[in-house]
Amino acid sequence: MEINIAVAKINKYSVSESGDTLEIVERPNGGVSVVLCDGQTSGKGAKVISTMVVRKVISLLAEGVRDGAAARAASDYLFTERSGKVTACLDILSIDLQTLTLVVTRNNPTPIFIARKEKVECIGGDSVAIGTSRNIRPSITEFPLEADITVVIYTDGIHTAGDRTGDSFDICTLLNGMLEDENPTPQAIADTILAQAMRLDQNRPADDMSVVVLRTTSAESDQIRRMTVHLPVPPIYI
Amino acid sequence: MEINIAVAKINKYSVSESGDTLEIVERPNGGVSVVLCDGQTSGKGAKVISTMVVRKVISLLAEGVRDGAAARAASDYLFTERSGKVTACLDILSIDLQTLTLVVTRNNPTPIFIARKEKVECIGGDSVAIGTSRNIRPSITEFPLEADITVVIYTDGIHTAGDRTGDSFDICTLLNGMLEDENPTPQAIADTILAQAMRLDQNRPADDMSVVVLRTTSAESDQIRRMTVHLPVPPIYI
Repeated sequence: MEINIAVAKINKYSVSESGDTLEIVERPNGGVSVVLCDGQTSGKGAKVISTMVVRKVISLLAEGVRDGAAARAASDYLFTERSGKVTACLDILSIDLQTLTLVVTRNNPTPIFIARKEKVECIGGDSVAIGTSRNIRPSITEFPLEADITVVIYTDGIHTAGDRTGDSFDICTLLNGMLEDENPTPQAIADTILAQAMRLDQNRPADDMSVVVLRTTSAESDQIRRMTVHLPVPPIYI
Repeated sequence: MEINIAVAKINKYSVSESGDTLEIVERPNGGVSVVLCDGQTSGKGAKVISTMVVRKVISLLAEGVRDGAAARAASDYLFTERSGKVTACLDILSIDLQTLTLVVTRNNPTPIFIARKEKVECIGGDSVAIGTSRNIRPSITEFPLEADITVVIYTDGIHTAGDRTGDSFDICTLLNGMLEDENPTPQAIADTILAQAMRLDQNRPADDMSVVVLRTTSAESDQIRRMTVHLPVPPIYI
């Protein structure tokens, strides 16, 4: 079996820093975790918050702490550091090779999508952001690691794309169409979702946008791990 | 300008854990860092060491600590934790958008390659592994961030490929050929180097092998950040 993960990410229009932070780390007992945090508002202030949260989560995961406990710790930490005045949305997507499961840990009202083969399921609604009170619990979805699973998580900049003009983004239909028609790579799915969200915002994203797509396949594997990073240097630096 | 990074990584033959650990993290003041550590020997013991070193380095970099100071801290930390009895090779490759430089911080006698356009330069020799004494200093190479730079770093499993059969791996010639002939992607370069190293070891790698390739281009950018991870699930898990 092979696991493929892809990320596509763009800043809010004319803002030099994204309030969304994403890191992918190796789990000490096997597997990887994707940690995505959307800090309240946008720009430098939001970046400080999302970086703080992601750093806390990845350092705990690297020590072998379970995802749910890491999310609770990040919530208490943000609540303490910012006196409950700042909120952040947090998603942790893990491939746990110790339990052979896929684990999605969410403190984020924005829904996510999980597809087994072509059947797309939307999971959402029952999850709150971290930082504003004690005793905030994450919503955890765990299921066996099998081939032909697709998971899509994203920040609210994608979810609310088109709101300014009264349009709405039906990600479920888009994803269904892509999965039925062909066998798209995670990068193709992520790029298509991001491109559609940007179009709905007239190519001037009204908020930071990040999308993560994970797919498992039963393909024969060469046992080589690969990773790529594509980092555009913003014009302000050049 | 755009920066593209690719990694290819395989375990020593018939060993389930790699002693090489690699993480890529965002720098708090802009840019990314690639941290690669090769723990002494191979298997679980080496993995514990390399994970410990990489975790220390990425947590310091995430706090804004400079690369050289992070490498020294990792060295002192490993020396203290393991009473000077265990060694590890460490490379940090950073795109620093604050100083607009590329910084290579090495505690690794294995050479690296830096190419400006097609002129390949080998940097090596003057660097020692961390962990065995106090006051170990990293070798630091820093140069302006420009287009058409290629940097290749790798662990000694690549460098010593073929040693068992008396062959040697001339990475410089291979890289020169690739850069002259075409405009290869970093993933194509990393895959070619890893494939050649594996061939020299009769497809049974005598040591863990990891290669990292970074290329800068002057291409027009869509300002979308992208990342992919390709994780084969080892047969022992399925």
